[in-house]
Amino acid sequence: MKWTQNHIFTLKEAPSDAEIPSHKLLVRGGFIKKLAPGIHTYSNMALRAIRKFETIIREELDKRGCTEVLMPMVQPRDLWEETSRWKEMGDGLLKFQNRNQHWFCLGATHEEAVTDYVRHDLKSYRDFPKNIYQIQTKYRDEIRPRFGLMRGREFSMKDAYSFDLDRDGALKAYDSMYKAYQAIFDRLGLKYRIVQADAGNIGGSQTHEFQLLAEAGEDALLVCDSCEFAANVEVSPAIDAIQHVSKDTSEKALEKFATPGHKTIADLSKFTSMPEKELVKTLFFSQNEGLDPKDKDLKPFAVLLRGSDEVNPIKLKNLLGMTNPPLMLTDEEVKMVTGAMPGSCGPVGLQIPIYMDNGVQGLKNYIVGANEDGYHVKNVNHGRDYKVTKVADLRMARAGDLCPLCKGKLSTYRGIEVGHVFYLGTKYSQKMNATYLDQQGKAKPIEMGCYGIGVTRTVQACIEQSHDQDGIIWPKAIAPYHVHICALDVKDEKVMGLTNSLEKELGSMGIDVLVDDRDERPGVKFKDADLLGMPLRLVIGKRGLDNNEVELVDRKTKAVKKINPSQIIAEIKQGLA
Amino acid sequence: MKWTQNHIFTLKEAPSDAEIPSHKLLVRGGFIKKLAPGIHTYSNMALRAIRKFETIIREELDKRGCTEVLMPMVQPRDLWEETSRWKEMGDGLLKFQNRNQHWFCLGATHEEAVTDYVRHDLKSYRDFPKNIYQIQTKYRDEIRPRFGLMRGREFSMKDAYSFDLDRDGALKAYDSMYKAYQAIFDRLGLKYRIVQADAGNIGGSQTHEFQLLAEAGEDALLVCDSCEFAANVEVSPAIDAIQHVSKDTSEKALEKFATPGHKTIADLSKFTSMPEKELVKTLFFSQNEGLDPKDKDLKPFAVLLRGSDEVNPIKLKNLLGMTNPPLMLTDEEVKMVTGAMPGSCGPVGLQIPIYMDNGVQGLKNYIVGANEDGYHVKNVNHGRDYKVTKVADLRMARAGDLCPLCKGKLSTYRGIEVGHVFYLGTKYSQKMNATYLDQQGKAKPIEMGCYGIGVTRTVQACIEQSHDQDGIIWPKAIAPYHVHICALDVKDEKVMGLTNSLEKELGSMGIDVLVDDRDERPGVKFKDADLLGMPLRLVIGKRGLDNNEVELVDRKTKAVKKINPSQIIAEIKQGLA
Repeated sequence: MKWTQNHIFTLKEAPSDAEIPSHKLLVRGGFIKKLAPGIHTYSNMALRAIRKFETIIREELDKRGCTEVLMPMVQPRDLWEETSRWKEMGDGLLKFQNRNQHWFCLGATHEEAVTDYVRHDLKSYRDFPKNIYQIQTKYRDEIRPRFGLMRGREFSMKDAYSFDLDRDGALKAYDSMYKAYQAIFDRLGLKYRIVQADAGNIGGSQTHEFQLLAEAGEDALLVCDSCEFAANVEVSPAIDAIQHVSKDTSEKALEKFATPGHKTIADLSKFTSMPEKELVKTLFFSQNEGLDPKDKDLKPFAVLLRGSDEVNPIKLKNLLGMTNPPLMLTDEEVKMVTGAMPGSCGPVGLQIPIYMDNGVQGLKNYIVGANEDGYHVKNVNHGRDYKVTKVADLRMARAGDLCPLCKGKLSTYRGIEVGHVFYLGTKYSQKMNATYLDQQGKAKPIEMGCYGIGVTRTVQACIEQSHDQDGIIWPKAIAPYHVHICALDVKDEKVMGLTNSLEKELGSMGIDVLVDDRDERPGVKFKDADLLGMPLRLVIGKRGLDNNEVELVDRKTKAVKKINPSQIIAEIKQGLA
Repeated sequence: MKWTQNHIFTLKEAPSDAEIPSHKLLVRGGFIKKLAPGIHTYSNMALRAIRKFETIIREELDKRGCTEVLMPMVQPRDLWEETSRWKEMGDGLLKFQNRNQHWFCLGATHEEAVTDYVRHDLKSYRDFPKNIYQIQTKYRDEIRPRFGLMRGREFSMKDAYSFDLDRDGALKAYDSMYKAYQAIFDRLGLKYRIVQADAGNIGGSQTHEFQLLAEAGEDALLVCDSCEFAANVEVSPAIDAIQHVSKDTSEKALEKFATPGHKTIADLSKFTSMPEKELVKTLFFSQNEGLDPKDKDLKPFAVLLRGSDEVNPIKLKNLLGMTNPPLMLTDEEVKMVTGAMPGSCGPVGLQIPIYMDNGVQGLKNYIVGANEDGYHVKNVNHGRDYKVTKVADLRMARAGDLCPLCKGKLSTYRGIEVGHVFYLGTKYSQKMNATYLDQQGKAKPIEMGCYGIGVTRTVQACIEQSHDQDGIIWPKAIAPYHVHICALDVKDEKVMGLTNSLEKELGSMGIDVLVDDRDERPGVKFKDADLLGMPLRLVIGKRGLDNNEVELVDRKTKAVKKINPSQIIAEIKQGLA
């Protein structure tokens, strides 16, 4: 492919809304162009990378007996009402009325659509197992789309769904998809981790995330230094390396004291000369899942943590069996519930459920807010001064915590979630009446699993992990082109003769070639070649050819090799091996 | 691919909403399944056919220097306001507000999106020509979706856009795409016609439709028996084979007469003993393009035609320079304008514009409505009794009319519009300020063309043209599989051994094989093979193999060949040649 025949326009500067390297590079290389927030056009080169990744996915899934279909992006409300997700999915599910005033949404995920697709077909135990997938454009109405394709509104996803007779079959399917995902991400040749995760509003009881490691990743991961344990911070158990137990043995008398203006834990720690980890903070949430702010039924509850810890909303959600993480109360709501503004609140005297993090349990005679603005109380003790509804692991785990499996130490990484596998059980099949007749003629709900890969997100995540200050370093498996030929003297017959014949010969060998045939200075061409990031750059110039020499540059190592033109094919094959 | 590993479920009966053969067959074969009106899931086999057609398209476009990209399906309102099409496209453009109350639409076509995509890149005359295309899911909110994929709401389309310096360049691009389309449709091996057409609300001054011929086609085509002329009835000039000129030479006196209850031309013809073609009918339309029924500014006008003719709303639209065909007045509106209900109306005494079809011009002393319920007037003459605003070709052409090029006879065909090429000129570039600097440094608007192929519609149209009473007859070029092996004794080692080795060997030769490995009776398998319609069926049974014999059936001709197993590969290659 000739540069001038394609539509390639590079930029010197990234736009101000591009915050992370991969986003900047995608825009600067002209791979994506924003049409609206979170909505992009993919250039020909971006599409080539996406298609190559799609092909890898297809090959690995097809060889494991999966069947590709294509489901609609526009879906009727009725379908989503069957599972209650029309409401549960919240505003992320884009809903609209068509010209006949019927409600539809844009598919953000396809559990409902696929269950509907198979429920009239899979009626007998002989029809199983099945695994159906699609690669499709999805839409999620993200509040704050950012990071280019990483958190976009319109994006491409591979979603697969398994259908089995029983739990054992479903777990076998899960295992097979897990292995398929390993094979897929292995083929990219990048660093990734498989971690335990939360099922979110997809549902299901077993789930793993495939996380491509990158500093700018949105997810925090905890990985054991000694064993195989790895988890998203959302679900990682938090186990103190050194358990803190108060030295006090007796419970002292409660004492209210003025703390004017000291509302944060940091302030209070300074003011009282107590370390943050010995202070107790009280947070307030609502157990009401209604998203309508006018809904007055607050269902407030309190959460107690050490001052040095952070609450984990996913653990709260799972403890309370909620669909989405609970929302924090507003200042006004806290005042209504406690009589004081946040910063002066505590558990004493509250008539609402109180959940306590494990870390607070060993404390005695501690300080909490007095539920009176500008005051705290000291010498507070649970049991005596207030009743705890439940003690549980509610804090975020962090580096240095103990591994829940082997008691090794946990380290933190940042990751980009590129794949996710879920064992769903019968959550959808029961609600949607997707049943089959077993050998005894008895109706049973189908056992399901679902499996996603963010196609466009993965392509960008590769860049986030694989780039340098000059540009992208494409993994060979999905590079838009394998070889980038910089023809330096485009009016020279010898240069263009060799270039054209190489393009043809390499093409016939399945090696994709981009030829920069612009009438531009070498510096401009080299800069663009670095930016666009094809694995190998071949420089063909008149002066070089006169010396029977061309230059082959490895994009990753920047190693330059002067080679004889007769060696080009062999060197390129070796460079791509 | 084994039948049991895929997801194939055939139906004995088509659903009641499937009206035409191709729709019935697609549903019965499990190729498509309806999720909502006009919205379907494509099965694996449907997807295979679609992908093969997509590949044909890509090959023909890429070799002509076109560049594939992928633009968003969700598009912001601002973009469509730039060209006024936010309003002009009417309710077919699905519009919605996202969670932040910003207006968006689902892309029904991408002239705006692509012009925005290139307008910041193509700034110099050196950047031309460019031709950009995509294959993408589109959405049009059809009032009455029907015929399966033929008039669906969600469908797949290939849309290409050319960008040139001037009209000559744009017409060269048009010509190149015209030839690409010929190559694409030639490769399907089906009967099609290229016809002159109307540009609709895409705009543009030169346009051709590619019409696959089929009885159930929605479009009427007029094709000359003697020359190359072919046109959609929407734009075909209507030229009487025998011009009708009144025998009367003098104009008689006007005379009102009672015609109680005779409101239709047929009634009036019987009542007056005048042939329909000598009566004149008066129709009423509104030139107001506002779609809001509360809009009171009617802008009524009248159209006069011979009683035997039908009005062509596209000709009216073009005569009046409207964006969409004019709407007919309601009975109440007609009464308001004329004083009488339709059926008793005529041109005499009206104060609104009156457009007359060519065919009326030769009439004298004719009958029209008296603008008084239950009355007509006779001996009416234009010029004397009322003033004609303009005489023009306003009727539908029909079989037997004269060819406008060679005066041969026109015949009618039915077609399915599968492709459409438009020369757009600067309609979009001017409105969207897409300009380049020419060699003199002067800003000029880019010359554009746009080119569509209905991908999913074409796949169905192929079936509409190519089927019999038993099922589909897939064109070889897009058949989901080339060979359908019916393995009759699936527990027999010899049968399955041969089947499996053939599947593998043919697969390695690029011949796609579907193996019916179900434990079903031969009759069931043969019926399904006919329904699914792969070009060749190979029947392998135990009894046959004992006689060293298998059966090869040509789906189209139903010719059966008994062959020796050693001849299978050769016979299949020949059968597919």
